[in-house]
Amino acid sequence: MNQVRMETDSMGQVEVPSDRYWGAQTQRSIHNFPIGRDTFVWGRPVIKALGILKKGAAQANAELGELPADVADLVVRAADEVIAGDLDEHFPLVVFQTGSGTQSNMNSNEVIANRAIELAGGELGSKTPVHPNDHVNRGQSSNDTFPTAMHIAVLLELRDRLEGGVGVLRDTLAAKAQEHADVVKVGRTHLQDATPITLGQEIGGWVAQIDYAMGQVRHAGEGLHELAIGGTAVGTGLNAHPRFGDLAARKMGEEAGLELRSAENKFAALSAHDALVQTSAALRTLAGALMKMANDVRWLASGPRNGIGELNIPENEPGSSIMPGKVNPTQAEALTMVATRVFGNDATVAFAGTQGNFQLNVFKPVMVHAVLESIRLLADACRAFNDGCAVGLEPNTARIEANLASNLMQVTALNPHIGYDKAAAIAKKAHKEGLTLREAAVASGELSEEQFDAWVVPADMTQPRQVD
Amino acid sequence: MNQVRMETDSMGQVEVPSDRYWGAQTQRSIHNFPIGRDTFVWGRPVIKALGILKKGAAQANAELGELPADVADLVVRAADEVIAGDLDEHFPLVVFQTGSGTQSNMNSNEVIANRAIELAGGELGSKTPVHPNDHVNRGQSSNDTFPTAMHIAVLLELRDRLEGGVGVLRDTLAAKAQEHADVVKVGRTHLQDATPITLGQEIGGWVAQIDYAMGQVRHAGEGLHELAIGGTAVGTGLNAHPRFGDLAARKMGEEAGLELRSAENKFAALSAHDALVQTSAALRTLAGALMKMANDVRWLASGPRNGIGELNIPENEPGSSIMPGKVNPTQAEALTMVATRVFGNDATVAFAGTQGNFQLNVFKPVMVHAVLESIRLLADACRAFNDGCAVGLEPNTARIEANLASNLMQVTALNPHIGYDKAAAIAKKAHKEGLTLREAAVASGELSEEQFDAWVVPADMTQPRQVD
Amino acid sequence: MNQVRMETDSMGQVEVPSDRYWGAQTQRSIHNFPIGRDTFVWGRPVIKALGILKKGAAQANAELGELPADVADLVVRAADEVIAGDLDEHFPLVVFQTGSGTQSNMNSNEVIANRAIELAGGELGSKTPVHPNDHVNRGQSSNDTFPTAMHIAVLLELRDRLEGGVGVLRDTLAAKAQEHADVVKVGRTHLQDATPITLGQEIGGWVAQIDYAMGQVRHAGEGLHELAIGGTAVGTGLNAHPRFGDLAARKMGEEAGLELRSAENKFAALSAHDALVQTSAALRTLAGALMKMANDVRWLASGPRNGIGELNIPENEPGSSIMPGKVNPTQAEALTMVATRVFGNDATVAFAGTQGNFQLNVFKPVMVHAVLESIRLLADACRAFNDGCAVGLEPNTARIEANLASNLMQVTALNPHIGYDKAAAIAKKAHKEGLTLREAAVASGELSEEQFDAWVVPADMTQPRQVD
Amino acid sequence: MNQVRMETDSMGQVEVPSDRYWGAQTQRSIHNFPIGRDTFVWGRPVIKALGILKKGAAQANAELGELPADVADLVVRAADEVIAGDLDEHFPLVVFQTGSGTQSNMNSNEVIANRAIELAGGELGSKTPVHPNDHVNRGQSSNDTFPTAMHIAVLLELRDRLEGGVGVLRDTLAAKAQEHADVVKVGRTHLQDATPITLGQEIGGWVAQIDYAMGQVRHAGEGLHELAIGGTAVGTGLNAHPRFGDLAARKMGEEAGLELRSAENKFAALSAHDALVQTSAALRTLAGALMKMANDVRWLASGPRNGIGELNIPENEPGSSIMPGKVNPTQAEALTMVATRVFGNDATVAFAGTQGNFQLNVFKPVMVHAVLESIRLLADACRAFNDGCAVGLEPNTARIEANLASNLMQVTALNPHIGYDKAAAIAKKAHKEGLTLREAAVASGELSEEQFDAWVVPADMTQPRQVD
Repeated sequence: MNQVRMETDSMGQVEVPSDRYWGAQTQRSIHNFPIGRDTFVWGRPVIKALGILKKGAAQANAELGELPADVADLVVRAADEVIAGDLDEHFPLVVFQTGSGTQSNMNSNEVIANRAIELAGGELGSKTPVHPNDHVNRGQSSNDTFPTAMHIAVLLELRDRLEGGVGVLRDTLAAKAQEHADVVKVGRTHLQDATPITLGQEIGGWVAQIDYAMGQVRHAGEGLHELAIGGTAVGTGLNAHPRFGDLAARKMGEEAGLELRSAENKFAALSAHDALVQTSAALRTLAGALMKMANDVRWLASGPRNGIGELNIPENEPGSSIMPGKVNPTQAEALTMVATRVFGNDATVAFAGTQGNFQLNVFKPVMVHAVLESIRLLADACRAFNDGCAVGLEPNTARIEANLASNLMQVTALNPHIGYDKAAAIAKKAHKEGLTLREAAVASGELSEEQFDAWVVPADMTQPRQVD
Repeated sequence: MNQVRMETDSMGQVEVPSDRYWGAQTQRSIHNFPIGRDTFVWGRPVIKALGILKKGAAQANAELGELPADVADLVVRAADEVIAGDLDEHFPLVVFQTGSGTQSNMNSNEVIANRAIELAGGELGSKTPVHPNDHVNRGQSSNDTFPTAMHIAVLLELRDRLEGGVGVLRDTLAAKAQEHADVVKVGRTHLQDATPITLGQEIGGWVAQIDYAMGQVRHAGEGLHELAIGGTAVGTGLNAHPRFGDLAARKMGEEAGLELRSAENKFAALSAHDALVQTSAALRTLAGALMKMANDVRWLASGPRNGIGELNIPENEPGSSIMPGKVNPTQAEALTMVATRVFGNDATVAFAGTQGNFQLNVFKPVMVHAVLESIRLLADACRAFNDGCAVGLEPNTARIEANLASNLMQVTALNPHIGYDKAAAIAKKAHKEGLTLREAAVASGELSEEQFDAWVVPADMTQPRQVD
Repeated sequence: MNQVRMETDSMGQVEVPSDRYWGAQTQRSIHNFPIGRDTFVWGRPVIKALGILKKGAAQANAELGELPADVADLVVRAADEVIAGDLDEHFPLVVFQTGSGTQSNMNSNEVIANRAIELAGGELGSKTPVHPNDHVNRGQSSNDTFPTAMHIAVLLELRDRLEGGVGVLRDTLAAKAQEHADVVKVGRTHLQDATPITLGQEIGGWVAQIDYAMGQVRHAGEGLHELAIGGTAVGTGLNAHPRFGDLAARKMGEEAGLELRSAENKFAALSAHDALVQTSAALRTLAGALMKMANDVRWLASGPRNGIGELNIPENEPGSSIMPGKVNPTQAEALTMVATRVFGNDATVAFAGTQGNFQLNVFKPVMVHAVLESIRLLADACRAFNDGCAVGLEPNTARIEANLASNLMQVTALNPHIGYDKAAAIAKKAHKEGLTLREAAVASGELSEEQFDAWVVPADMTQPRQVD
Repeated sequence: MNQVRMETDSMGQVEVPSDRYWGAQTQRSIHNFPIGRDTFVWGRPVIKALGILKKGAAQANAELGELPADVADLVVRAADEVIAGDLDEHFPLVVFQTGSGTQSNMNSNEVIANRAIELAGGELGSKTPVHPNDHVNRGQSSNDTFPTAMHIAVLLELRDRLEGGVGVLRDTLAAKAQEHADVVKVGRTHLQDATPITLGQEIGGWVAQIDYAMGQVRHAGEGLHELAIGGTAVGTGLNAHPRFGDLAARKMGEEAGLELRSAENKFAALSAHDALVQTSAALRTLAGALMKMANDVRWLASGPRNGIGELNIPENEPGSSIMPGKVNPTQAEALTMVATRVFGNDATVAFAGTQGNFQLNVFKPVMVHAVLESIRLLADACRAFNDGCAVGLEPNTARIEANLASNLMQVTALNPHIGYDKAAAIAKKAHKEGLTLREAAVASGELSEEQFDAWVVPADMTQPRQVD
């Protein structure tokens, strides 16, 4: 029975499970970093990005004559399996390892080398005909490959997960805004009754915030298209072919369907991850926008009888284990909890982003992990909120109309006619004496009933004064 | 005309305004650090603490035979003026200077030395008979004096400002809780209608949070009573008399009215400021508690007609420049804004607190400044909120009763009698058909009118089930 | 073939996998909250705590006559299996759900009820003889049970995980401090050469920081011993026996081996989680202390030739995929990355902690998850750092001595003899002319070679001036 | 003697100092909000922006026929004085007031109205011929004017303060990078010795980070050109002329020299300040970039004898009150402290930015204040760092060459010739036996002296492998 095999690296021999492709350095990392297992094992996005990276690098090296065509071909075939997700179980490492991600870069080198060796009929661990460092890592260093994989992983998740998750919610809300464009209701400022708006306008404000935030995410993402690849160990490009960075970035871009390019300044690309910090910040802005929307939804749906109650939301589950019949805005709660988590992740990313020294920032894994988590949670939560809440949002017309009828701030429409000071006196009188605004206005002697009815029209108050 | 005089330090001569006591190093700092002037000039608390520090050090040195009695006496007299606030205009430096606070320590050494020289009839800048380093700074380093002054300043502000400011609000709320102990009203969870509570219970929850937070502030403050003094340059106590730290701490404590002592581990006391970080965190918890309370107040006072409207708050100013007669919860807004500022200050303090290296943390000034700002703002805002809002808080009885009458969650009182599932059916029926709970309950056939009236009593629901 | 069964709740029927004990509400939550699966599924600590909670509640209810003894016994037996970890696969819910944790409370109610029914030979889903709400949840609400479980989970993890993980590192460092108590080396302030300390003193400073932080964690943890149990839906204790809270807390404490008690103010216990915020803050302080230590270690070990190089650290793995023979401070990097993550988690917790409204804070799940993650990561990383770095830390004596020999700041020992100003001139002369301090001192004419040798003794400088 | 006069608002009469132009509402705010006085009084940027705002509004209203030309002219003249800074002492309010900034908007309305009245020969407080609400605030609400002023204030500070302050430092560093483009030195990754780079490359990485961050600041700033003006009370534009927003924005832009426009979605513009949040985040990224640079500088300048010592920095002041002759990297410390403050301010801004409800975010003042503070501090600190450190940065050639000579990681240049594994063995041999790399390489038998000298050329290693 042979359940382990020997793998070697520059420090010596290590036993590795015989059914795993990884080599000595991956095994050492498993042993040295039992931190947060299993929650913090890398998932699909980073593994896929490492596959894209190694494939593109091999293609570029082959084209530049840096790798024999047959070796490159083997690497590409193995990398394709990594990309496809067939080898995920061979990537056992956790986030909290060396701060350069060296061990995950070596994990990909080792797995691809051994799988390539196997494809070539060679012996696992022999490093022949494919060597993890000399071939798979050719012209590369962890210091430029790992941040390259970070960018690719984040870009793919932004495109393939966030856009769809947020987009479906955004479109639902935009449709609701249009559908309810004519529902006139009270506005609220300082939580206090204010002048009328339409429900469409209210929802449209949420959409505008989401649109703005997604625009910021996309803009920050533009910086992620610049890759560290080509910088090798310290940013100088030592040992790489001078055209390697550009060509490898292009190859990776073709695989990923992204416009990737080698970063203009590789020293900054290794020692800082400011584009990732900016992406995190934009995700934070998105989280803030979603939090404001979700808070509005649950406040507007508060009640049903002792709150505001102007919106009805779907009843998805019993709300309470003790209070029978209770319904709660649970999707809003899940979304706002996600928002606080995104804020925390952003704090991690921004802090870590400041801690580079000289030619390297060694907080790479924790940064990319936090950004990927934020993307995943935002996308998932938006989709859940959409399906479980937004699509079912409906105005409670009776409550909306009752509130509008008792609203005092429509007095504002009198300002152009009788001035702020007299209008204030009318509003105060209504408030103190429990009158309707109309009653108080007429009682003031400042205007007639006819004038009141002509001047105070809630629907007219939802737009600028009309000019003839 | 002689508007400047020459002062010297180990780097040479510097011109100093002749009407100022400071010396060469203070002048260099003014020139080198034009950052955030004038907002970030040290205020009373730090200046006073520096005075207490220098007085105590001189007294201890004199008692230990390290300073001639006449020199010590001069230093004490000058330090007394610093403590009293007579020399504040001689402390022109800003927070953003050397990270050890060396320049502010030297500012105090120079001002005290020159003022002492003046008291002795000597010539300003002559360093005779009192030398800023050899006498005023005797047995000290900026590295142990500045953190000592930081602790003293914060402790004085906690005692003299925070306790009073928060205390007055806390006591007002506690009195309100007692006053309204019998006002039964709806409770709210998830913003949705829930089972009844009393207004006294609701307010009492706020008081409990404040009490907890203040307890944490006081506990964190205990760590501040340990002073770095006696550690000198790197924590070893080099050049200080072996009993200097203990004795100086005791003298400072006598002046300040605090139980001060020399820190057990001076290396940690110079290279980290974890007691300050903990104090900042406790202030953050206080800010969070106040934010929750202020948010509850403004939501309960929302309306007056289109919101919850169960509390009335004082009308202190016109609320709007365009909406006549509008009244806003402005004190709650000021307080919650302060809370967000305290959160930011805490982020600064915690971040800075991690950045020590070897024998020194060089983020001292920014840390103490942020903590002092948080204390000041919390104290001021609590007092303003107290005077402008809390003392005038009153229940809107009509609204409270109307809400209670329409509340459906009183169905929960039926659980012990008919079980959760049947109770749920009743609540749902009432909600869907617009019935009162009593109507729906009786219509369900599960209980009689008499049983309903006996079992569903809002006031009884504000406490555990009574046991005979 | 019968792979599903029907389960019901107050909203109707739901299909549930027939090999799972959970019921309708758990199934609804799986469907409604596909957010962050599988990373954010609750782990052992929360599941175990829910088991302890339900066991204690059943015992208390039985003792108070609120539950029949046989029903209580069934609940206890099922809860024991939850505690033991036998039913973990029946807890499929994720963190991002309703903000009260209602669905996880119901998950435990449903699983325990169904398992109890099975133990009694009944039919799953029949709610007979054990009903999830009326029996398992007796005298409880999610609003008081979930925060109760939160506190228990955190307390167990603090005791069973954090204490050991941090403790082993702390003890290793303390032993190293003692071992190297006589290794005299240069101190550093502002990153600049400073007066001598011993390596033992330097390491002892780290230990003091860890001790302080752990003291703060323990103090914050004291507040967690106060449980919300007994408050039921809104803090009033509605439907619970008046002695239920106290007794249930005691029973849970017996099971957990903790001194648990029912909170004095249940309104605060439901609507705020300030003890959790404080615990998070103390963990942040711990993270900050560990970050400072780890940074010191890696800087002292920097080089080996072009850095400071005063410490040797173990070589655990090849450091670079491109630079042969490179060794990196990887454990320090993992630990500092953990620190940034703990900072992020704390930001989440503190933010969420402010967002309570009225009688409930609906950010419970995200708060407890973040605190548990911080504990886990800190404990794991401390243990890894201990095993992979701290135990192997050794002084590089040759480098330490060479640095000490060239150090200029020993000039400080001359202050008491010749004064600061003349000492400064000597240091500057040595610096500018490339002399040793001794050469410059003697050349100054201020002191003799003999005096220099008597006054400037590095080992003597690691303590206060000796007094006869 | 008449030191006060009576002013009135909708709540009644208030005494105001007779030598101040402000009115009743400003006076009420002074009384109601004694929070953080005097540190938190608004400064020039906000006052100037309010002046620009009111001038532009008056011009637009006049052009649209909403204000009589003579009234508008008076308002413009008074507003010009506000812009010029002549009336700063008439703006006494602090940041912590109503969360909409209403009181500061009214402060500007009152001051401008009274000054306009004075210019017209009228009586202060008479509101004739210029009324603060009906004329100065015409077509406006605090809810749209204050955020408009916020944007203008921040844009002016970004343009007039930040660009210059950061720019001067950036240009100095860029010039240093060019000047030292040929200084070959060791690189460092993980703080460990790595392959060579040039000093120019190292400094160039800092410049690239600053350029990236400023690009992000400018991009975020683009969003600030969209103004809330035209939205009035709730975003609908009630009471404003339909073309007022666009025209007023254009007028303000002409005065400010900015391309201002009325926001596309006014509901979002009142209820959220996401462009400000994004600006704050970009300033945080800038702070992070500066922190990394300043940390590199102080580490490279560490020593002078027991650290890295590769850079010399200016000696601006005595570094220590106890250690004679010590020089510290004080400018780097001030700058990194500023960075931690900017991080804190950003935490405040982002938190506050999430807390909008319905049609208004009432954390406006605290948000704009924090952003303005960050801009001011970053600009000031960059300028101070430039003048006091960057311009004087010089390589310590002797130390750089000595480090380069002893560096082992140049072994990396052998990879392409002998492979990673053999190269690793050589480096390890050199390290363990204390050999030079050349000695160990030749002793390995893998290459000749001639080959070593041809392959291992530090300057060649600062770029990609040259291809024929």
